[in-house]
Amino acid sequence: MTSQSTRAQTINLGAGPCTLPTNVLETAARGLLDYNATGIGLVELSHRSKDFQALNAEAQDRLRKLLEVPDRFEILFMQGGGLQQFSCVVLNLVNQFRLKNRTAPEEVVTAGYVITGSWSAKAADESVRLGCPAHTLIDSRKYSSDGKSFKSIPQADRWTFDLAPNSAQRVPAFVYYCDNETVNGVEFGNPGFDVSGLPPSYDSVPLVADMSSNILSRRISPALWDRLGLVFAGAQKNMGPAGLTTVIVRKDLLVNLDDAVPFGGFRVPAMLSYKNLADHQSLYNTPPMFPIYVCNLVFEDLMSRGGVEMIERVNSEKASVVYKIIDESQGFYMNPIEAGARSRMNVIFTCSGGTSVEERFIAAAHKEGIKQIKGHRSIGGIRTSLYNAVTMEQVEVLCKFMLHFMKTEGKE
Amino acid sequence: MTSQSTRAQTINLGAGPCTLPTNVLETAARGLLDYNATGIGLVELSHRSKDFQALNAEAQDRLRKLLEVPDRFEILFMQGGGLQQFSCVVLNLVNQFRLKNRTAPEEVVTAGYVITGSWSAKAADESVRLGCPAHTLIDSRKYSSDGKSFKSIPQADRWTFDLAPNSAQRVPAFVYYCDNETVNGVEFGNPGFDVSGLPPSYDSVPLVADMSSNILSRRISPALWDRLGLVFAGAQKNMGPAGLTTVIVRKDLLVNLDDAVPFGGFRVPAMLSYKNLADHQSLYNTPPMFPIYVCNLVFEDLMSRGGVEMIERVNSEKASVVYKIIDESQGFYMNPIEAGARSRMNVIFTCSGGTSVEERFIAAAHKEGIKQIKGHRSIGGIRTSLYNAVTMEQVEVLCKFMLHFMKTEGKE
Repeated sequence: MTSQSTRAQTINLGAGPCTLPTNVLETAARGLLDYNATGIGLVELSHRSKDFQALNAEAQDRLRKLLEVPDRFEILFMQGGGLQQFSCVVLNLVNQFRLKNRTAPEEVVTAGYVITGSWSAKAADESVRLGCPAHTLIDSRKYSSDGKSFKSIPQADRWTFDLAPNSAQRVPAFVYYCDNETVNGVEFGNPGFDVSGLPPSYDSVPLVADMSSNILSRRISPALWDRLGLVFAGAQKNMGPAGLTTVIVRKDLLVNLDDAVPFGGFRVPAMLSYKNLADHQSLYNTPPMFPIYVCNLVFEDLMSRGGVEMIERVNSEKASVVYKIIDESQGFYMNPIEAGARSRMNVIFTCSGGTSVEERFIAAAHKEGIKQIKGHRSIGGIRTSLYNAVTMEQVEVLCKFMLHFMKTEGKE
Repeated sequence: MTSQSTRAQTINLGAGPCTLPTNVLETAARGLLDYNATGIGLVELSHRSKDFQALNAEAQDRLRKLLEVPDRFEILFMQGGGLQQFSCVVLNLVNQFRLKNRTAPEEVVTAGYVITGSWSAKAADESVRLGCPAHTLIDSRKYSSDGKSFKSIPQADRWTFDLAPNSAQRVPAFVYYCDNETVNGVEFGNPGFDVSGLPPSYDSVPLVADMSSNILSRRISPALWDRLGLVFAGAQKNMGPAGLTTVIVRKDLLVNLDDAVPFGGFRVPAMLSYKNLADHQSLYNTPPMFPIYVCNLVFEDLMSRGGVEMIERVNSEKASVVYKIIDESQGFYMNPIEAGARSRMNVIFTCSGGTSVEERFIAAAHKEGIKQIKGHRSIGGIRTSLYNAVTMEQVEVLCKFMLHFMKTEGKE
């Protein structure tokens, strides 16, 4: 169990679920007992009540403003997390593609995946499993020194992908990438995936971005919106509690999925249809009300503090001071990620002394109130996650601790 | 907007999301800021932390104890609500059936649906949409005076269902029913669906029960468990906040769904596979942590107060006093449901004076703090929902109000 300490003494650098603003949680705690002086707690209200419908609309509206989402996109609130979106993206967009192109049922429709970490790799696996071959456009492991680690974001001029055999006739239904790889600490630079390396035949292929762990941490430029077809993100990093998944999808991609079945389309569970959710303002059935509520408060808080532009500056600063300590530690701390691909959200590192030193680091940090920093079980090491709700002051405490620990350990 | 009043002044008789115990919400509000003196709020903890894993296991364990769930069942925590289960049930159990029977891919597998209200009807629609013909075993509308209302639970000796043409060779993959129809105010009597009217060839066919709106309101007898294959329930009535769906499924029905594809099975999204969830103690990805937390507190509260046996007695008493007022109102209040099929959870009624009187009733009740009692938009009228967290004292206030309203209105 985590040792006892108060909230004020704690710096929660968990990779998600992660820390949320204290003022937001205090408001939410009150709303849990009594929302808007109705005498009814937020989770006890009908989701069809005017109070909740207004909240639901407000949350979608605020997210649109914060991310400068163009009107041609619909904002959906769904359930099931990023993993469920791995399936939803395939089911919905392949059906859309089949319907639009009136594809013969026996013809295989593929999707293009850009693999830069364990989450994008997992997404591609699900596509294959569902019967949509995932054509690997880029696999960043090919470009790493050991040929098996995710360490970089290959630039377009280095791509060497082979198109699928039938690519002359066919483009993929979509091109998928993960903007920030939470496990591997790899992030695309601004503005995200560089489409310049794609062949011209891909010009109209919608980009799908998993922004689960960096949404709202920086602007999405108008130029990127121009190429995006869909963005999704689980709430539990920069937005709110787990149980809500936001999907931002271009309206022209919303089709009646049943109409695609004659063209070889999937039969899609009703709750996994983007169009169903869009047609009902995401109130097709009872939504995850509490996460929507907290997200709305987080959005409000972020707006009042200067919005995404402000937090983007703070996030860059936070990450740069931690990477600086790593880079200037003369090898005591090591981050394996190539410059330009380092995540601002998840700073991963190891200690030169190996696992035993890392364990001491984690234990000593814990005593100082710095918590949830153990690296993902698949790669080990240390991971300090610097999401929106982590303050510059907290990062400074982390930095001081890193310097102090290095001194006591490294000099001996 | 709902008019202002305090929590203590409010009697929330909403059909769901609905009232929850105040002491539970108070504890949850504290846990939101700091769980177990970790200095970290519940929704800020890693779902892989020991603290959360212990909570997750405890919640499943308590639910098992409360409902006397036999060991041969797995308890799953999922997302997406009852509507998503309409799809999950079909996708999982049809695949299980195909694999077990090594069904030829071109052979159609059907399911049997017992239709007693709008939710079971909707579930059958989804089965058809997914490509699994729903064989209507019983449609209670056939037995109502007007031939189109859901008013009764036809007893087995009155069933007149025709088996599907190929029923000599095939039994359905499952038989589905909804134990309590929230919209229509119809509930199966104890112990639930009467299997005695099914043909002997159905003996091994698993029963699937949607208990979304009456789970934990009464015991599930060992005899009923013997016939059940699966029970599901959205959390947002007797358990906790929306965003969590509990599935209790017999372990022998959990199969690797991909293995069923060669036999004509569905390709099932990973998050919709019961086996996936079971293999990971429902932590396949980040679960809806807050609803799980609140449910665990509700379970603890219910256990400390005498468990399901206690609440079953209270619930019967609560419903009977309200029905008594309706029945003794000399037609001022009218409940259309046949005796023996009246829901203990959702008491629906109309007023003899029609819509305008009902509107006055709802407005006057609201002034007294009795809220969220408008009937479902599909059938109108009034619906007072008497879930577990509604106290006998609150029901007595409702009764007094009904008598008072009748006097002021009815006598004029």
